[in-house]
Amino acid sequence: MTDVKVIEIKKSVFAENDRDAAALRTELKEKGVFLLNLMSSPGSGKTTTLIRTLNLLKDRLRIAVMEADIDSDVDAVKVREATGVESIQLHTGGMCHLDAEMTRQGLDNLPLAETDLVILENVGNLVCPAEFDTGAVRNAMILSVPEGDDKPLKYPLMFSVCDLVLINKTDVLPYFDFDLERCRANVALRNPQAQVIPICARTGEGVDRFAGWLLEQVLRWKEQPITDNL
Amino acid sequence: MTDVKVIEIKKSVFAENDRDAAALRTELKEKGVFLLNLMSSPGSGKTTTLIRTLNLLKDRLRIAVMEADIDSDVDAVKVREATGVESIQLHTGGMCHLDAEMTRQGLDNLPLAETDLVILENVGNLVCPAEFDTGAVRNAMILSVPEGDDKPLKYPLMFSVCDLVLINKTDVLPYFDFDLERCRANVALRNPQAQVIPICARTGEGVDRFAGWLLEQVLRWKEQPITDNL
Repeated sequence: MTDVKVIEIKKSVFAENDRDAAALRTELKEKGVFLLNLMSSPGSGKTTTLIRTLNLLKDRLRIAVMEADIDSDVDAVKVREATGVESIQLHTGGMCHLDAEMTRQGLDNLPLAETDLVILENVGNLVCPAEFDTGAVRNAMILSVPEGDDKPLKYPLMFSVCDLVLINKTDVLPYFDFDLERCRANVALRNPQAQVIPICARTGEGVDRFAGWLLEQVLRWKEQPITDNL
Repeated sequence: MTDVKVIEIKKSVFAENDRDAAALRTELKEKGVFLLNLMSSPGSGKTTTLIRTLNLLKDRLRIAVMEADIDSDVDAVKVREATGVESIQLHTGGMCHLDAEMTRQGLDNLPLAETDLVILENVGNLVCPAEFDTGAVRNAMILSVPEGDDKPLKYPLMFSVCDLVLINKTDVLPYFDFDLERCRANVALRNPQAQVIPICARTGEGVDRFAGWLLEQVLRWKEQPITDNL
Protein backbone atom coordinates (compact mmCIF):
# COMPACT_ATOMS: atom_id res chain seq x y z
CA MET A 1 0.00 0.00 0.00
CA THR A 2 1.33 3.44 -0.91
CA ASP A 3 2.63 5.47 2.00
CA VAL A 4 0.37 8.52 2.48
CA LYS A 5 0.67 11.30 5.00
CA VAL A 6 -2.04 11.09 7.67
CA ILE A 7 -2.91 14.10 9.82
CA GLU A 8 -4.90 13.55 13.01
CA ILE A 9 -7.22 16.53 13.48
CA LYS A 10 -8.05 17.27 17.09
CA LYS A 11 -11.58 16.31 17.99
CA SER A 12 -13.89 18.77 19.71
CA VAL A 13 -15.50 17.54 22.88
CA PHE A 14 -19.17 16.63 22.56
CA ALA A 15 -21.43 17.17 25.53
CA GLU A 16 -21.96 14.19 27.80
CA ASN A 17 -25.21 12.63 26.81
CA ASP A 18 -24.97 9.08 28.12
CA ARG A 19 -26.49 9.71 31.53
CA ASP A 20 -29.57 11.40 30.06
CA ALA A 21 -30.01 8.52 27.64
CA ALA A 22 -29.80 5.88 30.38
CA ALA A 23 -32.35 7.77 32.49
CA LEU A 24 -34.71 8.05 29.53
CA ARG A 25 -34.38 4.32 28.81
CA THR A 26 -35.29 3.49 32.41
CA GLU A 27 -38.33 5.77 32.27
CA LEU A 28 -39.48 4.19 29.02
CA LYS A 29 -39.13 0.74 30.57
CA GLU A 30 -41.32 1.82 33.49
CA LYS A 31 -43.92 3.07 31.03
CA GLY A 32 -43.72 -0.07 28.90
CA VAL A 33 -42.65 1.83 25.80
CA PHE A 34 -40.04 0.43 23.41
CA LEU A 35 -38.04 3.03 21.47
CA LEU A 36 -36.33 2.07 18.19
CA ASN A 37 -33.79 4.50 16.72
CA LEU A 38 -33.62 4.08 12.92
CA MET A 39 -30.63 5.66 11.19
CA SER A 40 -29.15 5.85 7.68
CA SER A 41 -27.66 8.10 5.00
CA PRO A 42 -29.96 10.48 3.15
CA GLY A 43 -31.94 8.67 0.48
CA SER A 44 -31.38 5.12 1.67
CA GLY A 45 -35.10 4.45 2.04
CA LYS A 46 -35.89 4.95 5.73
CA THR A 47 -39.39 6.33 5.19
CA THR A 48 -40.45 3.73 2.62
CA THR A 49 -39.16 0.94 4.86
CA LEU A 50 -40.96 2.44 7.82
CA ILE A 51 -44.29 2.66 6.00
CA ARG A 52 -44.15 -1.00 4.97
CA THR A 53 -43.15 -2.04 8.48
CA LEU A 54 -45.92 -0.03 10.13
CA ASN A 55 -48.52 -1.60 7.88
CA LEU A 56 -47.29 -5.05 8.94
CA LEU A 57 -47.23 -4.27 12.67
CA LYS A 58 -49.95 -1.71 13.35
CA ASP A 59 -52.59 -4.33 14.19
CA ARG A 60 -50.24 -6.07 16.63
CA LEU A 61 -48.78 -3.09 18.48
CA ARG A 62 -49.80 0.47 19.35
CA ILE A 63 -47.17 2.47 17.46
CA ALA A 64 -46.14 6.11 17.16
CA VAL A 65 -43.52 7.62 14.89
CA MET A 66 -41.16 10.58 15.33
CA GLU A 67 -39.70 11.88 12.07
CA ALA A 68 -36.58 13.96 12.64
CA ASP A 69 -35.66 16.30 9.84
CA ILE A 70 -33.71 19.49 9.40
CA ASP A 71 -36.61 21.43 8.10
CA SER A 72 -39.38 19.81 6.04
CA ASP A 73 -42.58 18.07 7.22
CA VAL A 74 -42.72 15.78 4.20
CA ASP A 75 -41.99 12.51 6.01
CA ALA A 76 -44.43 12.78 8.94
CA VAL A 77 -47.25 13.64 6.56
CA LYS A 78 -46.31 10.78 4.22
CA VAL A 79 -46.15 8.23 7.05
CA ARG A 80 -49.46 9.27 8.52
CA GLU A 81 -51.22 9.28 5.16
CA ALA A 82 -49.84 5.89 4.17
CA THR A 83 -50.40 4.08 7.47
CA GLY A 84 -52.76 6.03 9.73
CA VAL A 85 -50.16 5.72 12.48
CA GLU A 86 -49.67 8.68 14.86
CA SER A 87 -46.69 10.56 13.45
CA ILE A 88 -45.01 13.78 14.54
CA GLN A 89 -42.23 15.78 12.96
CA LEU A 90 -39.18 16.89 14.94
CA HIS A 91 -37.38 19.87 13.50
CA THR A 92 -33.75 19.81 14.58
CA GLY A 93 -33.09 23.43 13.62
CA GLY A 94 -30.15 22.49 11.41
CA MET A 95 -28.71 19.97 13.88
CA CYS A 96 -27.24 16.85 12.37
CA HIS A 97 -28.42 14.39 15.00
CA LEU A 98 -30.75 13.88 17.96
CA ASP A 99 -29.48 13.48 21.49
CA ALA A 100 -31.41 12.07 24.47
CA GLU A 101 -32.78 15.46 25.51
CA MET A 102 -34.10 16.21 22.02
CA THR A 103 -35.62 12.75 21.87
CA ARG A 104 -37.33 13.37 25.18
CA GLN A 105 -38.81 16.61 23.83
CA GLY A 106 -40.35 14.58 21.04
CA LEU A 107 -41.64 11.82 23.34
CA ASP A 108 -43.33 14.42 25.55
CA ASN A 109 -45.63 15.10 22.60
CA LEU A 110 -46.78 11.50 22.21
CA PRO A 111 -49.52 9.59 24.09
CA LEU A 112 -47.03 7.22 25.74
CA ALA A 113 -49.62 5.61 28.04
CA GLU A 114 -51.32 4.16 24.95
CA THR A 115 -48.14 3.30 23.05
CA ASP A 116 -46.09 0.08 22.89
CA LEU A 117 -43.53 1.10 20.30
CA VAL A 118 -42.09 4.44 19.23
CA ILE A 119 -39.96 4.51 16.10
CA LEU A 120 -37.59 7.45 15.79
CA GLU A 121 -36.46 8.13 12.23
CA ASN A 122 -33.21 9.97 12.89
CA VAL A 123 -31.63 12.64 10.63
CA GLY A 124 -30.15 11.19 7.42
CA ASN A 125 -26.49 11.03 8.38
CA LEU A 126 -24.00 8.18 8.92
CA VAL A 127 -21.76 10.11 11.28
CA CYS A 128 -23.25 12.21 14.07
CA PRO A 129 -26.37 10.21 15.01
CA ALA A 130 -24.08 7.28 15.88
CA GLU A 131 -22.29 9.41 18.48
CA PHE A 132 -25.36 10.30 20.52
CA ASP A 133 -27.31 7.71 22.48
CA THR A 134 -30.95 8.76 22.08
CA GLY A 135 -32.20 6.58 24.90
CA ALA A 136 -33.48 3.98 22.43
CA VAL A 137 -33.71 0.33 23.44
CA ARG A 138 -32.39 -0.78 20.06
CA ASN A 139 -30.56 0.93 17.20
CA ALA A 140 -31.12 -0.12 13.61
CA MET A 141 -29.72 1.28 10.40
CA ILE A 142 -30.31 1.01 6.70
CA LEU A 143 -27.48 0.74 4.20
CA SER A 144 -28.68 0.86 0.61
CA VAL A 145 -26.97 -1.03 -2.20
CA PRO A 146 -25.96 2.08 -4.23
CA GLU A 147 -23.96 3.40 -1.27
CA GLY A 148 -21.47 0.54 -1.53
CA ASP A 149 -20.50 -2.48 0.54
CA ASP A 150 -17.44 -0.68 1.99
CA LYS A 151 -19.43 1.68 4.21
CA PRO A 152 -18.82 -0.30 7.44
CA LEU A 153 -15.10 0.37 6.87
CA LYS A 154 -15.60 4.11 6.41
CA TYR A 155 -18.30 4.81 9.01
CA PRO A 156 -17.26 2.34 11.71
CA LEU A 157 -19.10 3.82 14.69
CA MET A 158 -22.51 3.69 13.01
CA PHE A 159 -22.15 -0.04 12.39
CA SER A 160 -20.73 -0.64 15.88
CA VAL A 161 -23.74 0.86 17.66
CA CYS A 162 -26.45 -0.87 15.61
CA ASP A 163 -28.15 -4.09 16.66
CA LEU A 164 -29.55 -4.57 13.16
CA VAL A 165 -28.41 -3.59 9.68
CA LEU A 166 -30.99 -3.60 6.90
CA ILE A 167 -29.50 -3.75 3.41
CA ASN A 168 -32.05 -2.00 1.22
CA LYS A 169 -32.64 -1.67 -2.53
CA THR A 170 -31.64 -5.25 -3.28
CA ASP A 171 -33.61 -4.95 -6.53
CA VAL A 172 -30.76 -2.90 -8.03
CA LEU A 173 -27.99 -5.33 -7.03
CA PRO A 174 -27.40 -6.25 -10.70
CA TYR A 175 -26.49 -2.65 -11.54
CA PHE A 176 -23.98 -1.96 -8.78
CA ASP A 177 -20.66 -3.41 -7.68
CA PHE A 178 -22.10 -4.48 -4.32
CA ASP A 179 -21.36 -7.90 -2.87
CA LEU A 180 -23.81 -8.97 -0.15
CA GLU A 181 -21.37 -11.44 1.39
CA ARG A 182 -18.53 -8.90 1.41
CA CYS A 183 -20.91 -6.44 3.05
CA ARG A 184 -21.88 -8.97 5.73
CA ALA A 185 -18.20 -9.56 6.40
CA ASN A 186 -17.54 -5.81 6.67
CA VAL A 187 -20.45 -5.39 9.09
CA ALA A 188 -19.17 -8.33 11.15
CA LEU A 189 -15.73 -6.69 11.36
CA ARG A 190 -17.32 -3.73 13.14
CA ASN A 191 -19.96 -5.61 15.05
CA PRO A 192 -20.04 -9.42 15.13
CA GLN A 193 -23.38 -9.34 17.04
CA ALA A 194 -25.24 -7.25 14.47
CA GLN A 195 -28.00 -8.97 12.56
CA VAL A 196 -28.13 -8.30 8.81
CA ILE A 197 -31.39 -8.49 6.85
CA PRO A 198 -31.48 -7.73 3.09
CA ILE A 199 -34.71 -6.01 2.06
CA CYS A 200 -36.30 -4.21 -0.85
CA ALA A 201 -38.60 -1.56 0.58
CA ARG A 202 -39.92 -0.73 -2.90
CA THR A 203 -41.26 -4.25 -3.50
CA GLY A 204 -41.62 -5.20 0.17
CA GLU A 205 -39.30 -8.19 -0.08
CA GLY A 206 -37.71 -9.06 3.27
CA VAL A 207 -39.58 -6.36 5.22
CA ASP A 208 -41.59 -9.07 6.99
CA ARG A 209 -38.33 -10.38 8.47
CA PHE A 210 -37.57 -6.92 9.83
CA ALA A 211 -41.09 -6.59 11.21
CA GLY A 212 -40.75 -10.00 12.86
CA TRP A 213 -37.44 -9.04 14.45
CA LEU A 214 -38.93 -5.81 15.78
CA LEU A 215 -42.07 -7.47 17.15
CA GLU A 216 -39.95 -10.03 18.98
CA GLN A 217 -37.72 -7.31 20.45
CA VAL A 218 -40.73 -5.34 21.71
CA LEU A 219 -42.48 -8.35 23.26
CA ARG A 220 -39.30 -9.56 24.94
CA TRP A 221 -38.63 -6.06 26.34
CA LYS A 222 -42.12 -5.78 27.76
CA GLU A 223 -41.74 -9.13 29.56
CA GLN A 224 -38.32 -8.30 31.00
CA PRO A 225 -38.37 -7.23 34.67
CA ILE A 226 -37.47 -3.57 35.20
CA THR A 227 -34.51 -4.52 37.35
CA ASP A 228 -32.80 -6.27 34.42
CA ASN A 229 -29.81 -4.67 32.85
CA LEU A 230 -31.17 -2.54 30.01
CA MET B 1 -51.90 18.20 3.35
CA THR B 2 -52.52 16.44 6.67
CA ASP B 3 -51.99 18.54 9.76
CA VAL B 4 -49.04 17.11 11.71
CA LYS B 5 -47.57 18.30 14.97
CA VAL B 6 -44.20 20.00 14.48
CA ILE B 7 -41.79 20.45 17.39
CA GLU B 8 -38.93 22.93 17.00
CA ILE B 9 -35.92 21.52 18.85
CA LYS B 10 -33.57 24.17 20.16
CA LYS B 11 -30.36 24.37 18.21
CA SER B 12 -26.99 24.26 19.94
CA VAL B 13 -24.65 27.12 19.13
CA PHE B 14 -21.79 26.22 16.79
CA ALA B 15 -18.51 28.03 17.22
CA GLU B 16 -17.98 31.03 15.01
CA ASN B 17 -15.90 29.92 12.07
CA ASP B 18 -16.58 32.53 9.41
CA ARG B 19 -13.74 34.88 10.30
CA ASP B 20 -11.14 32.09 10.17
CA ALA B 21 -12.49 30.99 6.80
CA ALA B 22 -12.33 34.49 5.31
CA ALA B 23 -8.75 34.91 6.54
CA LEU B 24 -7.75 31.57 5.06
CA ARG B 25 -9.33 32.50 1.73
CA THR B 26 -7.35 35.76 1.62
CA GLU B 27 -4.09 33.92 2.38
CA LEU B 28 -4.80 31.38 -0.34
CA LYS B 29 -5.44 34.18 -2.80
CA GLU B 30 -2.09 35.74 -1.92
CA LYS B 31 -0.42 32.40 -2.53
CA GLY B 32 -2.29 31.83 -5.79
CA VAL B 33 -3.91 28.63 -4.53
CA PHE B 34 -7.53 27.79 -5.40
CA LEU B 35 -9.34 25.58 -2.87
CA LEU B 36 -12.37 23.54 -3.93
CA ASN B 37 -14.51 21.95 -1.22
CA LEU B 38 -16.25 18.83 -2.55
CA MET B 39 -19.14 17.49 -0.47
CA SER B 40 -21.77 14.73 -0.68
CA SER B 41 -23.51 11.89 1.14
CA PRO B 42 -21.58 8.70 1.81
CA GLY B 43 -21.35 6.53 -1.29
CA SER B 44 -22.34 9.14 -3.87
CA GLY B 45 -19.10 8.72 -5.82
CA LYS B 46 -16.83 11.56 -4.67
CA THR B 47 -13.58 9.61 -4.98
CA THR B 48 -14.37 8.10 -8.38
CA THR B 49 -15.40 11.51 -9.71
CA LEU B 50 -12.25 13.03 -8.28
CA ILE B 51 -9.97 10.46 -9.90
CA ARG B 52 -11.49 11.05 -13.34
CA THR B 53 -11.28 14.81 -12.90
CA LEU B 54 -7.65 14.72 -11.76
CA ASN B 55 -6.67 12.67 -14.79
CA LEU B 56 -8.29 15.29 -17.04
CA LEU B 57 -6.67 18.28 -15.30
CA LYS B 58 -3.32 17.14 -13.94
CA ASP B 59 -1.37 18.21 -17.04
CA ARG B 60 -2.95 21.68 -16.98
CA LEU B 61 -2.72 22.51 -13.28
CA ARG B 62 -0.52 21.60 -10.33
CA ILE B 63 -3.01 19.84 -8.06
CA ALA B 64 -3.04 18.41 -4.54
CA VAL B 65 -5.83 16.51 -2.79
CA MET B 66 -6.92 16.35 0.86
CA GLU B 67 -9.13 13.37 1.67
CA ALA B 68 -11.09 13.88 4.87
CA ASP B 69 -12.37 10.74 6.52
CA ILE B 70 -13.40 9.61 9.96
CA ASP B 71 -10.82 6.93 10.16
CA SER B 72 -9.63 5.03 7.08
CA ASP B 73 -6.81 5.89 4.63
CA VAL B 74 -8.49 4.10 1.72
CA ASP B 75 -9.30 7.18 -0.35
CA ALA B 76 -5.96 8.99 -0.28
CA VAL B 77 -4.16 5.81 -1.28
CA LYS B 78 -6.67 5.14 -4.06
CA VAL B 79 -6.40 8.68 -5.45
CA ARG B 80 -2.62 8.68 -5.43
CA GLU B 81 -2.37 5.26 -7.05
CA ALA B 82 -4.90 6.10 -9.77
CA THR B 83 -3.62 9.57 -10.67
CA GLY B 84 -0.13 10.13 -9.26
CA VAL B 85 -1.43 13.37 -7.75
CA GLU B 86 -0.14 14.41 -4.29
CA SER B 87 -2.80 13.22 -1.86
CA ILE B 88 -2.99 13.38 1.92
CA GLN B 89 -5.50 11.93 4.34
CA LEU B 90 -7.11 14.05 7.05
CA HIS B 91 -8.46 12.09 9.99
CA THR B 92 -11.23 14.02 11.66
CA GLY B 93 -11.23 11.93 14.83
CA GLY B 94 -14.91 11.16 14.54
CA MET B 95 -15.91 14.72 13.60
CA CYS B 96 -18.63 15.00 11.01
CA HIS B 97 -17.24 17.98 9.11
CA LEU B 98 -14.18 20.15 8.56
CA ASP B 99 -14.01 23.77 9.68
CA ALA B 100 -11.53 26.40 8.49
CA GLU B 101 -8.99 25.62 11.21
CA MET B 102 -9.01 21.91 10.41
CA THR B 103 -8.67 22.73 6.72
CA ARG B 104 -5.68 24.94 7.51
CA GLN B 105 -4.02 22.07 9.40
CA GLY B 106 -4.34 20.02 6.23
CA LEU B 107 -3.05 22.78 3.93
CA ASP B 108 0.02 23.24 6.17
CA ASN B 109 1.07 19.78 5.06
CA LEU B 110 0.95 20.54 1.33
CA PRO B 111 3.58 22.20 -0.89
CA LEU B 112 1.39 25.26 -1.55
CA ALA B 113 4.12 27.24 -3.36
CA GLU B 114 4.02 24.65 -6.14
CA THR B 115 0.25 24.17 -6.17
CA ASP B 116 -2.49 25.85 -8.24
CA LEU B 117 -5.47 23.86 -7.04
CA VAL B 118 -6.26 21.97 -3.83
CA ILE B 119 -9.33 19.77 -3.79
CA LEU B 120 -10.73 18.95 -0.38
CA GLU B 121 -12.93 15.86 -0.31
CA ASN B 122 -15.02 16.58 2.77
CA VAL B 123 -16.57 13.97 5.11
CA GLY B 124 -19.52 12.11 3.53
CA ASN B 125 -22.44 14.00 5.10
CA LEU B 126 -25.17 16.28 3.71
CA VAL B 127 -25.70 18.19 6.95
CA CYS B 128 -22.73 19.41 8.98
CA PRO B 129 -20.16 20.19 6.25
CA ALA B 130 -22.63 22.73 4.83
CA GLU B 131 -22.61 24.64 8.11
CA PHE B 132 -18.87 25.26 8.26
CA ASP B 133 -17.10 27.49 5.73
CA THR B 134 -13.76 25.73 5.11
CA GLY B 135 -12.16 28.76 3.48
CA ALA B 136 -12.70 27.27 0.02
CA VAL B 137 -13.10 29.54 -3.00
CA ARG B 138 -15.87 27.35 -4.37
CA ASN B 139 -18.13 24.66 -2.94
CA ALA B 140 -19.33 21.78 -5.07
CA MET B 141 -21.44 18.77 -4.17
CA ILE B 142 -22.43 15.46 -5.66
CA LEU B 143 -25.97 14.13 -5.47
CA SER B 144 -26.29 10.61 -6.84
CA VAL B 145 -29.40 9.34 -8.59
CA PRO B 146 -30.24 6.60 -6.02
CA GLU B 147 -30.48 9.23 -3.26
CA GLY B 148 -33.56 10.79 -4.86
CA ASP B 149 -34.43 14.07 -6.57
CA ASP B 150 -36.05 15.47 -3.38
CA LYS B 151 -32.79 15.93 -1.48
CA PRO B 152 -32.62 19.73 -2.09
CA LEU B 153 -35.92 19.95 -0.19
CA LYS B 154 -34.65 17.93 2.76
CA TYR B 155 -31.07 19.22 3.04
CA PRO B 156 -31.60 22.84 2.02
CA LEU B 157 -28.41 24.39 3.41
CA MET B 158 -26.10 22.05 1.49
CA PHE B 159 -27.68 23.08 -1.80
CA SER B 160 -27.73 26.76 -0.81
CA VAL B 161 -23.97 26.93 -0.19
CA CYS B 162 -22.86 25.09 -3.34
CA ASP B 163 -21.84 26.81 -6.55
CA LEU B 164 -22.10 23.57 -8.48
CA VAL B 165 -24.19 20.42 -8.12
CA LEU B 166 -23.01 17.28 -9.91
CA ILE B 167 -25.73 14.68 -10.43
CA ASN B 168 -23.86 11.38 -10.49
CA LYS B 169 -24.72 7.78 -11.47
CA THR B 170 -26.87 8.83 -14.43
CA ASP B 171 -26.32 5.31 -15.83
CA VAL B 172 -28.85 3.95 -13.32
CA LEU B 173 -31.55 6.55 -14.08
CA PRO B 174 -33.76 3.84 -15.67
CA TYR B 175 -33.92 1.92 -12.40
CA PHE B 176 -34.86 4.76 -10.04
CA ASP B 177 -37.74 7.17 -9.70
CA PHE B 178 -35.45 10.16 -10.28
CA ASP B 179 -36.48 12.98 -12.60
CA LEU B 180 -33.56 15.14 -13.75
CA GLU B 181 -35.75 18.14 -14.54
CA ARG B 182 -37.57 17.92 -11.18
CA CYS B 183 -34.16 17.73 -9.50
CA ARG B 184 -32.95 20.82 -11.36
CA ALA B 185 -36.09 22.64 -10.25
CA ASN B 186 -35.54 21.57 -6.62
CA VAL B 187 -31.92 22.74 -6.74
CA ALA B 188 -33.05 26.07 -8.24
CA LEU B 189 -35.55 26.52 -5.39
CA ARG B 190 -32.65 26.48 -2.93
CA ASN B 191 -30.08 28.20 -5.09
CA PRO B 192 -31.01 29.76 -8.46
CA GLN B 193 -27.32 30.51 -9.17
CA ALA B 194 -26.11 26.93 -8.77
CA GLN B 195 -24.89 25.18 -11.89
CA VAL B 196 -26.05 21.59 -12.38
CA ILE B 197 -24.02 19.07 -14.37
CA PRO B 198 -25.20 15.45 -14.78
CA ILE B 199 -22.29 12.99 -14.83
CA CYS B 200 -21.55 9.30 -14.67
CA ALA B 201 -18.24 8.89 -12.87
CA ARG B 202 -18.20 5.16 -13.62
CA THR B 203 -18.21 5.65 -17.41
CA GLY B 204 -16.73 9.16 -17.37
CA GLU B 205 -19.68 10.76 -19.13
CA GLY B 206 -20.01 14.46 -18.34
CA VAL B 207 -16.88 14.60 -16.17
CA ASP B 208 -15.15 16.70 -18.87
CA ARG B 209 -17.78 19.38 -18.31
CA PHE B 210 -17.00 19.42 -14.61
CA ALA B 211 -13.26 19.55 -15.33
CA GLY B 212 -13.86 22.45 -17.75
CA TRP B 213 -15.89 24.33 -15.15
CA LEU B 214 -13.17 23.83 -12.54
CA LEU B 215 -10.33 24.86 -14.86
CA GLU B 216 -12.17 28.04 -15.76
CA GLN B 217 -12.82 28.86 -12.10
CA VAL B 218 -9.15 28.38 -11.20
CA LEU B 219 -7.82 30.46 -14.10
CA ARG B 220 -10.29 33.26 -13.46
CA TRP B 221 -9.40 33.30 -9.75
CA LYS B 222 -5.69 33.51 -10.48
CA GLU B 223 -6.23 36.51 -12.78
CA GLN B 224 -8.45 38.37 -10.30
CA PRO B 225 -6.70 41.17 -8.37
CA ILE B 226 -6.27 40.40 -4.65
CA THR B 227 -8.32 43.47 -3.73
CA ASP B 228 -11.42 42.06 -5.41
CA ASN B 229 -14.21 40.79 -3.29
CA LEU B 230 -13.51 37.11 -2.71
